[in-house]
Amino acid sequence: MTTNERNQGWVLARRPKGPVTPEDFRLESTDLPTIGDGEVLVRNHYLSLDPYMRGRMDDAKSYAASQPLDKVMGGGTVGEVVQSRSSRLKVGDKVVGMGGWQSFSAGRDEGFKKVDTTRVPLQAYLGVVGMPGVTAWHGLNEIIAPKAGETVVVSAASGAVGATVGQLAKLKGCRVVGVAGGAEKCRAVVEEFGFDACIDYKAGNLDKDLKAAVPDGIDGYFENVGGAVLDAVLKRFNAFGRIAICGLIAGYSGEAIPVHQFRSVLVNRLKLEGFIVSEHPASWPKALAELEELVGSGRMKYRETVSDGLASAPEAFIGLLKGQNFGKQLVKLI
Amino acid sequence: MTTNERNQGWVLARRPKGPVTPEDFRLESTDLPTIGDGEVLVRNHYLSLDPYMRGRMDDAKSYAASQPLDKVMGGGTVGEVVQSRSSRLKVGDKVVGMGGWQSFSAGRDEGFKKVDTTRVPLQAYLGVVGMPGVTAWHGLNEIIAPKAGETVVVSAASGAVGATVGQLAKLKGCRVVGVAGGAEKCRAVVEEFGFDACIDYKAGNLDKDLKAAVPDGIDGYFENVGGAVLDAVLKRFNAFGRIAICGLIAGYSGEAIPVHQFRSVLVNRLKLEGFIVSEHPASWPKALAELEELVGSGRMKYRETVSDGLASAPEAFIGLLKGQNFGKQLVKLI
Repeated sequence: MTTNERNQGWVLARRPKGPVTPEDFRLESTDLPTIGDGEVLVRNHYLSLDPYMRGRMDDAKSYAASQPLDKVMGGGTVGEVVQSRSSRLKVGDKVVGMGGWQSFSAGRDEGFKKVDTTRVPLQAYLGVVGMPGVTAWHGLNEIIAPKAGETVVVSAASGAVGATVGQLAKLKGCRVVGVAGGAEKCRAVVEEFGFDACIDYKAGNLDKDLKAAVPDGIDGYFENVGGAVLDAVLKRFNAFGRIAICGLIAGYSGEAIPVHQFRSVLVNRLKLEGFIVSEHPASWPKALAELEELVGSGRMKYRETVSDGLASAPEAFIGLLKGQNFGKQLVKLI
Repeated sequence: MTTNERNQGWVLARRPKGPVTPEDFRLESTDLPTIGDGEVLVRNHYLSLDPYMRGRMDDAKSYAASQPLDKVMGGGTVGEVVQSRSSRLKVGDKVVGMGGWQSFSAGRDEGFKKVDTTRVPLQAYLGVVGMPGVTAWHGLNEIIAPKAGETVVVSAASGAVGATVGQLAKLKGCRVVGVAGGAEKCRAVVEEFGFDACIDYKAGNLDKDLKAAVPDGIDGYFENVGGAVLDAVLKRFNAFGRIAICGLIAGYSGEAIPVHQFRSVLVNRLKLEGFIVSEHPASWPKALAELEELVGSGRMKYRETVSDGLASAPEAFIGLLKGQNFGKQLVKLI
């Protein structure tokens, strides 16, 4: 590490009106931070891009605090400790934390968690063995709680969360049906991730295709999307079904997406729960232990879309919001 | 009881297309049934009319079995045993059961439950100490489960269920806000049933009036209505709110009522649960004991709209669906 190296970071330049554009971000160069007692400096290797970031870019009331203007965009990172004044972390340790859209992050050592990269690649701690994986685990186990033989539907099935939900549900003996956009994604959902079926919502026959794929109806639904997919699923629910509501990406650009089949909640006595995984700390150690074991032993598959270089982060994020990624969207920083 | 007395009953003549009309029913006269061993003949004193009956009139998939065509309409009744070949029930006993829209009912003694009319009037066993009361108790205690100081909103607040929900929530130390149609109903909701406030949704300022009535936001919602009221409530929810979905009367005539503010479920991490009280047998003895005590001691108020004579049942039912009743809708049969 050369002493004249500088930190590069993307700040929020303005709040988007409607779709996000590259002009909503600004790349800034700053001196490397100086660390104090108990702090570390981390060189970030990968940045995670996630749909929740879109909500934070607005000023509106949301579950997460707003992203402040002219500050570095928040986000999960994995990297390597390059300076340490901590007794817990030493130079060379691989860590996961909320380092933001930037090449270096500094902070208290408790803000970073050391990870074991002997069985699991470093960047997987941003995906299947990170926040998306725990999200999948919590929604499936703590909200849907499926029994063997039940039918579970997963929207955004090829995504980092959805693919994990489906594989965990298969391990529990469920019939698992994914919904994804495009034939290529659907093929991977079935062939690679082992779902029993996958509906391509872009093919134009969502209702009919879904009906054919769930001959025994639907008992659980992991919701990442909202809109037409939610309505189609609500029509096929069995009594006492459960819906874990993790995301409603179709509404992230501001427009309200009405739900037309809400009456199914009463007719079928459904339980729905919206959740954010950061508010369920009890799930994290259980989920991470299980996922690390499944990934390490090769029983849990995952895909990544890796964009190259910090400069590519805004375009990669816009692509993610358009569904152009396949699996976990990462930015490789080094 | 004269031996040549006959039974009168309303049968479903046809399935309604859209709004229910008197022509959907037909009054039939039949011989009194002859009872066998273990059976009783009951002269019905009051018939209960309830919104769920509208759903049963359709052929569509619903939570209740369809009402068969040309059979006597199902419904709750209270009455007096007039013939008995049962060891459990004797002539003169007052009973509650599912006697249907008719003047006499016969059946196995276990289909009727003897009630105590010394502290509670007979017809209250169709209302506040019956299915509507248990519905209120279950949704409030088992789904919303409010804590003292929380704000609970109740739609159809002047109805048999809503008025009970609100009074039970007040007894728990909640701020309770009703929503009802018309100034007269709203006045009674506050002055008679003791709610802290009541919004008249017909006054045209639902959003603004509700906002003013819930300065600390909403923590629990007992849903009897759906449509615009649900949307207005969803906008004001606090994090981790709970919604008990008991009825969506606005959609009973077939039209789908879209929910526009569904995103609140995710943003505020809400829990929603649709329920039918008949599927929660564990709640019944607890609820009935508490409600009987509250009514008997005068601490639980209730209102009834009583229509006179079996002949008036169809018109009274149509009025109920239009919200013309105030409190429990009954038909006095004798």
